[in-house]
Amino acid sequence: MSVPEGITAITVEFHVRYVETDAQGVVNHAHYVSWFEEARSFYSRERGRDYAEFERSGFFLPVAEVSVRYLRPARYGDRVAVRCWIQELRSRSVVFGYEVTHALSGELLTTGQTKHICLNLQRQVTTIPEAWRNGMRG
Amino acid sequence: MSVPEGITAITVEFHVRYVETDAQGVVNHAHYVSWFEEARSFYSRERGRDYAEFERSGFFLPVAEVSVRYLRPARYGDRVAVRCWIQELRSRSVVFGYEVTHALSGELLTTGQTKHICLNLQRQVTTIPEAWRNGMRG
Amino acid sequence: MSVPEGITAITVEFHVRYVETDAQGVVNHAHYVSWFEEARSFYSRERGRDYAEFERSGFFLPVAEVSVRYLRPARYGDRVAVRCWIQELRSRSVVFGYEVTHALSGELLTTGQTKHICLNLQRQVTTIPEAWRNGMRG
Amino acid sequence: MSVPEGITAITVEFHVRYVETDAQGVVNHAHYVSWFEEARSFYSRERGRDYAEFERSGFFLPVAEVSVRYLRPARYGDRVAVRCWIQELRSRSVVFGYEVTHALSGELLTTGQTKHICLNLQRQVTTIPEAWRNGMRG
Repeated sequence: MSVPEGITAITVEFHVRYVETDAQGVVNHAHYVSWFEEARSFYSRERGRDYAEFERSGFFLPVAEVSVRYLRPARYGDRVAVRCWIQELRSRSVVFGYEVTHALSGELLTTGQTKHICLNLQRQVTTIPEAWRNGMRG
Repeated sequence: MSVPEGITAITVEFHVRYVETDAQGVVNHAHYVSWFEEARSFYSRERGRDYAEFERSGFFLPVAEVSVRYLRPARYGDRVAVRCWIQELRSRSVVFGYEVTHALSGELLTTGQTKHICLNLQRQVTTIPEAWRNGMRG
Repeated sequence: MSVPEGITAITVEFHVRYVETDAQGVVNHAHYVSWFEEARSFYSRERGRDYAEFERSGFFLPVAEVSVRYLRPARYGDRVAVRCWIQELRSRSVVFGYEVTHALSGELLTTGQTKHICLNLQRQVTTIPEAWRNGMRG
Repeated sequence: MSVPEGITAITVEFHVRYVETDAQGVVNHAHYVSWFEEARSFYSRERGRDYAEFERSGFFLPVAEVSVRYLRPARYGDRVAVRCWIQELRSRSVVFGYEVTHALSGELLTTGQTKHICLNLQRQVTTIPEAWRNGMRG
């Protein structure tokens, strides 16, 4: 589940927001799924390919599958780092991998992956445009 | 801030979700704003006028102002009741009032109001269609 | 991924909230994870065993793993049904299974599962108290 | 509603997350309330006074009132800036003011304020500790 050799990964850092905690005093598990989503946004931005632009051009990459493993909790105010890379890129789908760590200590908090299928405006499965596939690969 | 005489109010009840709590052990204050929104949805549904239908017909009622007063906290699993009514209905705007109570004890937890402006698809201020205004008044 | 024979499942129904949609016009994928959590809450309540009570007695069942498969989108105002059952119950862990359907059409929208580890107040792995294990099995 | 002269204000910037948008294609109004909360967190951090520390010392500053005015929408991927300052500091309460702008254009998107009451661990109204009041004033 770690970043394969030769693969470009991006890392986005932010503080845990109060609203992301729950009554257990730690970050609610659902929010990691949104952090993954935000890391994908950064991935595209870093490659000079804004995902908002992708949608404006008539394509979507909705999430078809998500899985997360929770190893250690994060707390309000913690600085966390979310690492994101492409695990598998096919003509009509892409799999992203993720690692969330505590930014200061480097402790691994969570790992995960998401699988995405490319859809057109009619929500039919379609090929990821070539320019985008090249751009995503880094 | 209570329901004016002769005014129709609806009440929607649900349990507090775990994800809605925060590290203070109670419901995070931001979620009441979403509960108000859900109460408005019920208000329209109860009047036989689904807000989704309103948007499909080319109109929006985005929130222009919101205010909330927090009196007592709600906890995970609490059954809460959100009361919602129209405080003021004008040609291009509408103000909703809200009261959140603990469903069992009747204790008042939160009060609030939201003001909405009617927009068309071009996001220009426009008149609320007559049929909808009549429907909303109940 | 469907409910095994002889297994008790509960179903909780609610309307999709506006705040749960995103700019794709459908429910954001992260919220299904919270819906699963709410279904677990109902599961405990239906068995006469409130999870809030479980935590007050000094135990937690944090999520160790979650996986979701997204088949069809849900939209604002849709009435959805979340089915929840115990897939595996061990001395220190439990796996819940889930199915989200469109309540009217019965169409399957999402499936998933979550694995939970029992922790005590010191956040050490511990045995699920016998009374709770019996209660959960239904 | 703008920052009074001689008053210290902090500004925190971030990108709009996809999960923060809704089916209207813009940021759901409830999330601004969470952005205000995050700006308060930054305010304390910038003053060398972490709010998490405040809670660990046995005090809370729950929100007693919130109000927001929505002027222009924000969209997925927009870089937004949230400005936060103390409007009023009393012995047992504090009022924060906020302005959300589009970070690039400087356009004003939203204004708001929140009022907080100081509580102790027993949830009784109490005086804000002197060291904290001095620290907050900047």
